[in-house]
Amino acid sequence: MREYLIHDEWNIIEEGFQPENHKSSESIFSLGNGKMGQRANFEETYTGPTLQGSYVAGIYYPDKTRVGWWKNGYPEYFAKVLNSPNWIGIDVQIDGHFLDLYTCKTENFRRVLNMQEGFLLREFTAIMDDGKKVAVTAKRFVSMADTEIGAIRYSVTPLNFEGKISFTPYLDGDVENEDSNYDEKFWNLIDMEAHSGEAYIVTETKKLGFRAGFGMMTKTFIQGVEVKIQPEIMKKEAWVGNRFEKEVKEGEEFSIEKIVGVTSSLNYSKNDILVATKKSTKAGFDKGFDQLFSSHSNEWKQKWVHSDIKIEGDIAAQQGIRFNIFHLHQTYTGEDERLNVGPKGFTGEKYGGSTYWDTEAYCIPFFISTAPSNVTRNLLIYRYKQLDKAIENAEKLGFKDGAALYPMVTMNGEECHNEWEITFEEIHRNGAIAFAIHNYIRHTNDFKYLEEYGLEVLIGISRFWSQRVNWSGEKKKYVMLGVTGPNEYENNINNNWYTNKMATWCMKYTTEAIAKVKQNNADAFNQICNKTNFKAEVELAKWKEITDQMYFPFNEEINVFMQQDGYMDKEHILVKDLDPKQRPINQYWSWDRILRSCYIKQADTLQGIYVLEEEFDLETIKRNFEFYEPRTVHESSLSPCVHSILAAKIGLTDKAYEMYLRTSRLDIDDYNHEAHEGLHITSMAGTWMSVVEGFGGKRVYDGKLYLNPIIPKQWKKYAFRLTFMNNDLEVIVSKDKIEVVSHSDNPIELYVYGKLIKAEPHQIVETEAH
Amino acid sequence: MREYLIHDEWNIIEEGFQPENHKSSESIFSLGNGKMGQRANFEETYTGPTLQGSYVAGIYYPDKTRVGWWKNGYPEYFAKVLNSPNWIGIDVQIDGHFLDLYTCKTENFRRVLNMQEGFLLREFTAIMDDGKKVAVTAKRFVSMADTEIGAIRYSVTPLNFEGKISFTPYLDGDVENEDSNYDEKFWNLIDMEAHSGEAYIVTETKKLGFRAGFGMMTKTFIQGVEVKIQPEIMKKEAWVGNRFEKEVKEGEEFSIEKIVGVTSSLNYSKNDILVATKKSTKAGFDKGFDQLFSSHSNEWKQKWVHSDIKIEGDIAAQQGIRFNIFHLHQTYTGEDERLNVGPKGFTGEKYGGSTYWDTEAYCIPFFISTAPSNVTRNLLIYRYKQLDKAIENAEKLGFKDGAALYPMVTMNGEECHNEWEITFEEIHRNGAIAFAIHNYIRHTNDFKYLEEYGLEVLIGISRFWSQRVNWSGEKKKYVMLGVTGPNEYENNINNNWYTNKMATWCMKYTTEAIAKVKQNNADAFNQICNKTNFKAEVELAKWKEITDQMYFPFNEEINVFMQQDGYMDKEHILVKDLDPKQRPINQYWSWDRILRSCYIKQADTLQGIYVLEEEFDLETIKRNFEFYEPRTVHESSLSPCVHSILAAKIGLTDKAYEMYLRTSRLDIDDYNHEAHEGLHITSMAGTWMSVVEGFGGKRVYDGKLYLNPIIPKQWKKYAFRLTFMNNDLEVIVSKDKIEVVSHSDNPIELYVYGKLIKAEPHQIVETEAH
Repeated sequence: MREYLIHDEWNIIEEGFQPENHKSSESIFSLGNGKMGQRANFEETYTGPTLQGSYVAGIYYPDKTRVGWWKNGYPEYFAKVLNSPNWIGIDVQIDGHFLDLYTCKTENFRRVLNMQEGFLLREFTAIMDDGKKVAVTAKRFVSMADTEIGAIRYSVTPLNFEGKISFTPYLDGDVENEDSNYDEKFWNLIDMEAHSGEAYIVTETKKLGFRAGFGMMTKTFIQGVEVKIQPEIMKKEAWVGNRFEKEVKEGEEFSIEKIVGVTSSLNYSKNDILVATKKSTKAGFDKGFDQLFSSHSNEWKQKWVHSDIKIEGDIAAQQGIRFNIFHLHQTYTGEDERLNVGPKGFTGEKYGGSTYWDTEAYCIPFFISTAPSNVTRNLLIYRYKQLDKAIENAEKLGFKDGAALYPMVTMNGEECHNEWEITFEEIHRNGAIAFAIHNYIRHTNDFKYLEEYGLEVLIGISRFWSQRVNWSGEKKKYVMLGVTGPNEYENNINNNWYTNKMATWCMKYTTEAIAKVKQNNADAFNQICNKTNFKAEVELAKWKEITDQMYFPFNEEINVFMQQDGYMDKEHILVKDLDPKQRPINQYWSWDRILRSCYIKQADTLQGIYVLEEEFDLETIKRNFEFYEPRTVHESSLSPCVHSILAAKIGLTDKAYEMYLRTSRLDIDDYNHEAHEGLHITSMAGTWMSVVEGFGGKRVYDGKLYLNPIIPKQWKKYAFRLTFMNNDLEVIVSKDKIEVVSHSDNPIELYVYGKLIKAEPHQIVETEAH
Repeated sequence: MREYLIHDEWNIIEEGFQPENHKSSESIFSLGNGKMGQRANFEETYTGPTLQGSYVAGIYYPDKTRVGWWKNGYPEYFAKVLNSPNWIGIDVQIDGHFLDLYTCKTENFRRVLNMQEGFLLREFTAIMDDGKKVAVTAKRFVSMADTEIGAIRYSVTPLNFEGKISFTPYLDGDVENEDSNYDEKFWNLIDMEAHSGEAYIVTETKKLGFRAGFGMMTKTFIQGVEVKIQPEIMKKEAWVGNRFEKEVKEGEEFSIEKIVGVTSSLNYSKNDILVATKKSTKAGFDKGFDQLFSSHSNEWKQKWVHSDIKIEGDIAAQQGIRFNIFHLHQTYTGEDERLNVGPKGFTGEKYGGSTYWDTEAYCIPFFISTAPSNVTRNLLIYRYKQLDKAIENAEKLGFKDGAALYPMVTMNGEECHNEWEITFEEIHRNGAIAFAIHNYIRHTNDFKYLEEYGLEVLIGISRFWSQRVNWSGEKKKYVMLGVTGPNEYENNINNNWYTNKMATWCMKYTTEAIAKVKQNNADAFNQICNKTNFKAEVELAKWKEITDQMYFPFNEEINVFMQQDGYMDKEHILVKDLDPKQRPINQYWSWDRILRSCYIKQADTLQGIYVLEEEFDLETIKRNFEFYEPRTVHESSLSPCVHSILAAKIGLTDKAYEMYLRTSRLDIDDYNHEAHEGLHITSMAGTWMSVVEGFGGKRVYDGKLYLNPIIPKQWKKYAFRLTFMNNDLEVIVSKDKIEVVSHSDNPIELYVYGKLIKAEPHQIVETEAH
């Protein structure tokens, strides 16, 4: 834990500059707009420890795989999120000396991430070696409205002298990734230009040849009034800039506005990048900083209307949930079906790739309830478009006849990961991808999606499962050998309950989906059969045979589902009895020790119970929770939210609250000492789930919405907004009552504590709290 | 398979030069003397594909670990066998053109590895681009008598012209390892000198600073008569040489003898290397090529007396077994307890390290029966000296109180391997190391070894096992979770029968050894207790409790030991029913598919039955063999020998012969298409085992020698030599009789087909064959 940030409802605030926290702050104060993102690196020179990070969505580098020992089937490359050319840079000189917070003294340093309006503000007084003091203010944002624009306003005021101050805004294409496998740089320079008051750079990634263009235009001001200064026009290798120098009086504010346009070959043809960048930069520049900001903050206002969660009486919890929601919106806006939600979003390089099962298992529940349905639909279509690659991927592993295995980690549908126990064996991801289709449909009734896209994916996935199991002559059941479940602290195990459960669910749901499509649109069904070469009779019979006779490990004595075969052979010492000095165990124990221990990294059997909750009665959920929670170390960011939801379900409100705090403030308070690498973006959706599905008890079954709210004793009141069947409603939970506020033009039906509630358009319906 | 070598009893012969086989031949025709070794690289320039390999025993480079995903407990480095400075080089120019077999035409090319006398001979006619023909002969050896000396005689005879021929003998320190993890070079130059007729180079390894010195002195001859030629003295970066040029007449033989001295800081202080190298080189040079060769070939004669296996009626088998014995002797002579038997010996870089469990499990059975007992004793002492590191290694994995886990791969006792499923889990190696102590003692009655060294090792190993098991509340037995057995086609499995068996055996044997030492030398025992802090009562009781209640997977239905938990859950399709196009499966299947298949890479349960054969009756052995052999793909070089021995035991002579051929000609016929990387040195000892223990039926129980010979129908007769209790005997097996020939000065007792035979000194005793 590292609690250096100030609690506040709408802002993340750091007071006093501590270089040892800077890399964490660079992550925490990151900005993004779904199309690009930027760590909270300083504009001016900074010679201390930093992770420079500027990211353009959809651009990656296929970095040649690095392994100790190669295994057949490993991918050739790991797709890396790319640190892109630096567009925020503004070198500042005070009478010839570079301003550098690592070497000068600072006073009244304050860094604020304003989440309500989406900007980063930095204010401080710097005291230079020669005693000269300057007050500095820097504000920047990455526009949600003009999505190719980033804007910076940077001001310096001499406090105790009159002297020469210079700003050198620049664009730097000579950047590197910290996690390059072979210490290569990933970009080549294509083009650059520098003129008075503007500069442009176009770079291209090695190997795949993605192009990105960066343009800047600047204005300078004295006391807020524009002044024209003839800059020195500068060019270095893959670097262009302007240097503006001015004699500034004591107490006079010298400012620069840098408007930056960023484009990429995802959206323009490669040869047009320079022109497009110029156009984009000019458009932004013409609007100007203030107007850009106004449109930008309006966009944020809209986002908050539909996705804010208000918590009264608990600022830490309030700040935590908004921080999570804020970063989710910064990472993914749902406008581009080629993009996805990377585990670190635009806040770091780690884990490369863009797409893990996190998207389906955690992010979709968030987006489906807080954003228009097309956002989720685009995330689903992303996988549909990668179905061919998933089939190829399965073929590499010996599967056939259209069986599809989606990759563990991917950018373009190809597998990127290279640990056999994960790449080849953590196959439950296929289940989450299928389930997301179901989840989307039950929230939207968009059955059309099945015909158009979903059914093909479901068939591919079910085929995979049907080939992945085998008949055990000993158990006289179908078994699934050699898998890794969500609990990655077990590898290459047999009959992971969760995976077996999801596999069975997939085959059953695909069977239902087939019936549905057949009934709704027989032509469409026939087309799908032809396209996928689907032999309905044989394949459906096979699936039924398997689902009827699937083996699920179960312990009769304690009446609990067993995470996998042999789990009860382990030594069972509970987490509470572990030496705290040995935790987190992944930092202190060798891998084999972790594997043979009973400790669970993240919800596994409980994940299954969470996903398929309707199949289990409350007693079963309780028994399993009480068995597994004391054995779970939650060393994955994706774990506490699920436990929080189930704890809430079975009435363990304190446990639910403990788990909620852990997930919501994971990065702000840096629980795992890893915020410097980037934020846990996808688990942030889990935080939202733990409020809405946990405390709020939100469920959707058969196209019906259910709420069973409880409220932690630490809270006075909380409220969340939901989109359901394209209707918009707000739920306000206080100690004594539940208010359902309709923001919809249609009547809404839902169940609160099992009781049907009908809310007329824009009506508020109250229910007594249980 | 690649059968390009000619069958011959004593020689390996290649006729006609095929560059595509050259890298394999470089391995197969390698030379060594236990202290250094040299692949059969050409002396003259060769621009075709080659793996340059010159190795000095005990010198290695700790190459920074390369992994995809780091796991706690991984070692910092992988110790690499080092390609050392090139000392064989002699560039040859014919009228200014370099002789290069990759670019010129050759006729009558013949390469011979004479195993009886231990030399490499090459003869060919080269036709240069301009039509000039030269006859070339090159002979070299690495002296078994003068172990710091290598010697080359190289002759060129112009066949159709008179012209200038030059020899440039050189020493080249600028060499690299093909398998460098980060493309670094591993050597620095320390010193070099070149004078007329001699040159020296001293290099030092990076990081650990091992030094090696190489010296050369040369003589030139015309028609065998020495001629003095003033050489051009040459120096380049880390390269020294002399160039001897001579106008040579048609039909006249121009020759050079290059005598090389090689020393290292293993045997000299670092600053003395240059002086020692000069001295060593001079001593060799003074003896001269012919005298050096005569001493060398005498050494080989002695080695063959004690270890030859003669097979009549089957040249391929004869050649195979001699090839294996020859390379074992070249790799390890047992004179230096700091050395060990690397899996590729001096024939390639692959697998780095020097010491695997191969040494104890395969090589010791060979050396204990063919070499003086101190050779095996030195191999055991090597592990004794590394006990502290084994204890440290276990501590890294969470073990305590003196538990020892020997590394999977090591040079100096530190673990080098970095695959969790092997490094941390393939712990059966500890069992082989303990068993080797027992094996040594039962062959020698050297119980003193236990007091001096063995018992401490046994205690450390037994402590490890006692901590590695845990009580299963479910099975009500001790279990061992998360291991990899000898069959590496299963990872992270529970209750590997072999590992559980060996663990139990270790604890029982240590208990017996303690009793023995206590009885023989109570003082020594007390000292060991103090040194190891051994709490006899408590620890022995714990071991007994575990061994009494250990779990061994067993299938009641088929009455067969189960390789591990869940083995019968797999799909059981026999190897014979596998698509041959899919084999070897390790080249065609992804790792997960291999893991969940029933296919066995190498003897596992059968390995245990082989090692502890006396515990099992013939029916049990048969049943288990008949179950496991059809499921074994033998994709490890260490597998067929064990199956061959057991097949012989249960009367499946044809199967035993098939397995024997596979092991004995594995490299000569390049079964696995990997001879180019180096030879399977340690499995060569398995070949010896398959003749002596398999066909010969040699066993030792309770200090008594048993033989149960059978003879494959393909053979007329075979004979092998044995050292047992320091007595020397020969066993000649023909279709109708067994002759035991005593070469000992003491009477020998042994059992042939269970009948006690007494051989007086130098007597021959005949028994009828069964």
